[in-house]
Amino acid sequence: MADEWLTTLKTATPQEGFELAITLSRRGVKYTQPDTEVLHALRPEYANSADALTAASQVVAINFQTVAAANDYWRG
Amino acid sequence: MADEWLTTLKTATPQEGFELAITLSRRGVKYTQPDTEVLHALRPEYANSADALTAASQVVAINFQTVAAANDYWRG
Amino acid sequence: MADEWLTTLKTATPQEGFELAITLSRRGVKYTQPDTEVLHALRPEYANSADALTAASQVVAINFQTVAAANDYWRG
Amino acid sequence: MADEWLTTLKTATPQEGFELAITLSRRGVKYTQPDTEVLHALRPEYANSADALTAASQVVAINFQTVAAANDYWRG
Amino acid sequence: MADEWLTTLKTATPQEGFELAITLSRRGVKYTQPDTEVLHALRPEYANSADALTAASQVVAINFQTVAAANDYWRG
Amino acid sequence: MADEWLTTLKTATPQEGFELAITLSRRGVKYTQPDTEVLHALRPEYANSADALTAASQVVAINFQTVAAANDYWRG
Repeated sequence: MADEWLTTLKTATPQEGFELAITLSRRGVKYTQPDTEVLHALRPEYANSADALTAASQVVAINFQTVAAANDYWRG
Repeated sequence: MADEWLTTLKTATPQEGFELAITLSRRGVKYTQPDTEVLHALRPEYANSADALTAASQVVAINFQTVAAANDYWRG
Repeated sequence: MADEWLTTLKTATPQEGFELAITLSRRGVKYTQPDTEVLHALRPEYANSADALTAASQVVAINFQTVAAANDYWRG
Repeated sequence: MADEWLTTLKTATPQEGFELAITLSRRGVKYTQPDTEVLHALRPEYANSADALTAASQVVAINFQTVAAANDYWRG
Repeated sequence: MADEWLTTLKTATPQEGFELAITLSRRGVKYTQPDTEVLHALRPEYANSADALTAASQVVAINFQTVAAANDYWRG
Repeated sequence: MADEWLTTLKTATPQEGFELAITLSRRGVKYTQPDTEVLHALRPEYANSADALTAASQVVAINFQTVAAANDYWRG
């Protein structure tokens, strides 16, 4: 994964920050399983499971804490 | 999900902050599974499971940490 | 859930703060499953399971982090 | 649980802080299941399960974050 | 594990910080199971499981919080 | 567990801090299950399970957050 995908944690709005948190969560998966075909095949397993969706939302919540702090909670 | 749904983390009261944390938790799910029919079908699976409800409450707790910090814990 | 239940994160003592963390954890469940009869029926499932009790204690711990920070750890 | 069990988060040493984190973790369980006989009966279920012991250690770690912050990491 | 593998939490960019978070997550596994053959044999178990990949991404997210704070969120 | 095992969270390097986080994680287990023979017997259960190793790494990550903050991220 030599490409450049994360140059800053700054975002213009909280919503863009939340979307960056989603990107971070997905990248956390891709570093472990880089094969996009495998990831695609696994999609039904988690997108149709309440437990898996809650777990995914939890990872997003943790990454959003980081992004929100990096943006001083968009207070400025 | 092109709509604008999160413009600020500021809320007037802690309770509104807690409710924003619930919104964030649900949005974390919807970014992964945007199909509301699927989400509706999954509802009985988690709304009647003690483990799933505890897991959902945990995601809310994590998001509430972020919202509470953003509001300086409503100290002002 | 139109009632007002959370007007401040301030508490007089750490123990009251811990008890507020318990309230927050339960409210996190109730927003997802507001039906108190369902919640009552689920009680044996988690109150007699070591794993469920540990998971519940974890949610309390996360909410207690928030309440303790809001009270500057009762240092004053 | 009308007794007073938590009057301060301050401890003299990091080790006492860690032990307070264990107390907080156990209290988080007892607020959900106050019946000590039930808790005693559940003990073999988690004290002999690697997964349950790891989960218990995680709750302690989260509570230790709170206690350590409250003591300014015993830096003084 | 006598080798030196972690001399600083500073990284030049957020992406390098994310990659350090991945290293920390893997090292957390290796301290418990240092046998690389065992780890290699376990790889299919988690790299093809949606739940395991989400759990791995969560550990990365927690470690990324630490690395991001150590770098003041690459604000400077 | 009357012995003294934790007198400071300060470490000379980030790597020693990570190793202290591992110690904290193991102590979190030992306070719940002090019998080292039981712990030894449980070892194969978690050291050969991808899920258990990820869970162990997560506890280390949480404790490393605390140790890193206590050392001001070894910035000085």
